Amino acid sequence: MESSIGIVGSGVSGLHLGLFLLANDVPATMYAQSEPDEIRQGRLLNTVGHHHHTLERERALGVHHWEAAEYGYVCHHHCIAGDEEVRFRGDFTHPSSVIDYRLYLPRLMEDFQERGGELVLGKTLGVEEVNRLSSRHDLVVVAVGRGGIGELFPRREDKSPFDRPQRRLSAGIYSGITYSEPKGVNIHFSPGHGELLELPIYSHDGFATALLFEAIPGGDVEELAEVKYDEDPSAYDRLVLEKLGRHFPMAFERVDSTEFGLWSPRDILQGALTPIVRRDYARLDGGRYALAAGDCHVVVDPVMGQGANSASYSAWTIGEAILADHVYDGRFCERVARRREEFVISVSDWTNLMLNPPPHVLEFIGAMASDKALCDEFTTNFNHPDKQVDVLGTPERTRTFLEMRQSAAAGTRG
Amino acid sequence: MESSIGIVGSGVSGLHLGLFLLANDVPATMYAQSEPDEIRQGRLLNTVGHHHHTLERERALGVHHWEAAEYGYVCHHHCIAGDEEVRFRGDFTHPSSVIDYRLYLPRLMEDFQERGGELVLGKTLGVEEVNRLSSRHDLVVVAVGRGGIGELFPRREDKSPFDRPQRRLSAGIYSGITYSEPKGVNIHFSPGHGELLELPIYSHDGFATALLFEAIPGGDVEELAEVKYDEDPSAYDRLVLEKLGRHFPMAFERVDSTEFGLWSPRDILQGALTPIVRRDYARLDGGRYALAAGDCHVVVDPVMGQGANSASYSAWTIGEAILADHVYDGRFCERVARRREEFVISVSDWTNLMLNPPPHVLEFIGAMASDKALCDEFTTNFNHPDKQVDVLGTPERTRTFLEMRQSAAAGTRG
Repeated sequence: MESSIGIVGSGVSGLHLGLFLLANDVPATMYAQSEPDEIRQGRLLNTVGHHHHTLERERALGVHHWEAAEYGYVCHHHCIAGDEEVRFRGDFTHPSSVIDYRLYLPRLMEDFQERGGELVLGKTLGVEEVNRLSSRHDLVVVAVGRGGIGELFPRREDKSPFDRPQRRLSAGIYSGITYSEPKGVNIHFSPGHGELLELPIYSHDGFATALLFEAIPGGDVEELAEVKYDEDPSAYDRLVLEKLGRHFPMAFERVDSTEFGLWSPRDILQGALTPIVRRDYARLDGGRYALAAGDCHVVVDPVMGQGANSASYSAWTIGEAILADHVYDGRFCERVARRREEFVISVSDWTNLMLNPPPHVLEFIGAMASDKALCDEFTTNFNHPDKQVDVLGTPERTRTFLEMRQSAAAGTRG
Repeated sequence: MESSIGIVGSGVSGLHLGLFLLANDVPATMYAQSEPDEIRQGRLLNTVGHHHHTLERERALGVHHWEAAEYGYVCHHHCIAGDEEVRFRGDFTHPSSVIDYRLYLPRLMEDFQERGGELVLGKTLGVEEVNRLSSRHDLVVVAVGRGGIGELFPRREDKSPFDRPQRRLSAGIYSGITYSEPKGVNIHFSPGHGELLELPIYSHDGFATALLFEAIPGGDVEELAEVKYDEDPSAYDRLVLEKLGRHFPMAFERVDSTEFGLWSPRDILQGALTPIVRRDYARLDGGRYALAAGDCHVVVDPVMGQGANSASYSAWTIGEAILADHVYDGRFCERVARRREEFVISVSDWTNLMLNPPPHVLEFIGAMASDKALCDEFTTNFNHPDKQVDVLGTPERTRTFLEMRQSAAAGTRG
């Protein structure tokens, strides 16, 4: 079936969709803001992990250029700091990886072009432009979070509990810190102050460590999101070291302070975002439809590292639905919405839950600390956000899950 | 995982769910109104086809007691009566079958008991009893259409376009009419008066023919639903013959009028039903949940023969969701609703569409009359109601589908 799909945005969602369509002989046009080389030379975009299900899609698309066995990592090391520090590890069934998006996105944009995709460069598109575009495409997929374009898709109040950022963020790539063993993403908790995600990233100059500080507003780590790196780089590096020492001992102990510092001035990103879920689709002026994808559809805090995975999952769902149908109307959009709802909304619900963990979630984390199999399951379920919500969604769900687990263990012993 | 599921109703939905649960070691209790032998000796319950996807579930459950290759049928013969009579055939990819539910249900009820299911006999349960039951089960599935129990689940206005029956029905098993070749279900249209479905049924005394008259209110066939068979059996038989002769020539020509007549006085069912879609689930008084299934969830007119298939699909979806979860709360019910929505609501939307076919649907039927491959696809798609709505849901969908089909054919020829 021949069709023409317009994709606004060249992030992971737009690229995975575009490449999926080309692989299935559906013409696709991508509207992007920056050329591949601009992105390569630019500032750090994020520090996002790709989990196994996303890597499997990359393999299927022939764009898994950084083999996870070599570039990836295999576990999560956890540390809850405090008077009674707790450390525990969870292993993945299959490795995940963190590739700097300044490598990843340009390479996939070039794949897209080499495979016959049309890449149109220009300024960020707004609502009006999307309405105009729809006369040239059977369907427009809006897969870009920035700009006013999101207004096409009203906020879903039932799934958007916050009206402000829950964390203030500072992400940077640092030298002078060795990897933990086995190679993993390290999740550090400093109760009351926030989390540090320490990620083994592959970036422009090879392997390094990304530190993503998730600062609770008003806490002692918040400074890292407020102080501007550029104003005094070495003071900022010292501030990071100080916060590591005070709040994140499992990272600090692997730092060589004489070597420690940001890789380069363009390797830092500071900010904050408000989680939001928008409606799946909109009817455009001409009667055709636009689907939201990626950050245009769901914005999650990066604390659980789910954004790219959710965006890629969504892209794949849209691609499969496009192949299976021949008219991209309200029925089509409803089908996409229904098929991605469980996964994508679980990403959002789960992440929002972890930002302000209620007692039953803290209890579950406590259970993981003394039960490696449970922690392995939780870790592998970074691939299954729906299962995370099945287990953590309500106090009853967590209690019943842990009770069933205990009685199954008793049965095995008995 | 051990759990206790209460199933109200012993129709195809309740039985397929119950057998699915037992096959997966989940205890199930079924609340039924009649003993197997009462059903065996009773009046005709319906004349419903089981299509391939339903038969596949029966095979998986080990209850496919009537092998479709022997008991089933392989095609639909169509006839549009009138001055320019049109006949055309559509073939299934896999056979379907019509087994008298007075054989089918008792046998599966016995399977259920033999496999360890608990069968509780008693009067029809109402809303109050379901609320009481919920204290004894983790989840109650209400899979019975009759009685006031449906009131638990409010009507979905968005999917229930009718407030009265669209057809008046007379279904009976008749002797004196031979099967068409190849063996099929014959779909007869008498414009303005209604349809006749002629079905090769396997019943208490072996193979026979079921005639299901779908009379449009006010049309000339309606008498068959109004005149009581029992008041004058031979007059009723003559009336049926007369209607066959006047409206349904493709059936009439295979009748031996000296042999023609209802098999026995208990082999007839007259009535009418109003199609309705109810909400998927309800929260019960004690905080637990009840799920609607089968006719309690969706009532369709029998004209497309979809009721049992939809009920079985729904049962399977519920069973798989039960296995995958450990708490049967609102999240669980929402998941079931989402997973069956596309199939089950398409059954309803498609059937409702065919009851009052708009011009684009009539055009499509016309296209089938001269394109056997198209008719084969439509016939096999009795297994895929979602695809039927994809093709017939709107004038644009039908037009685009037929245009794409034409240009593909031109491409093949070119």
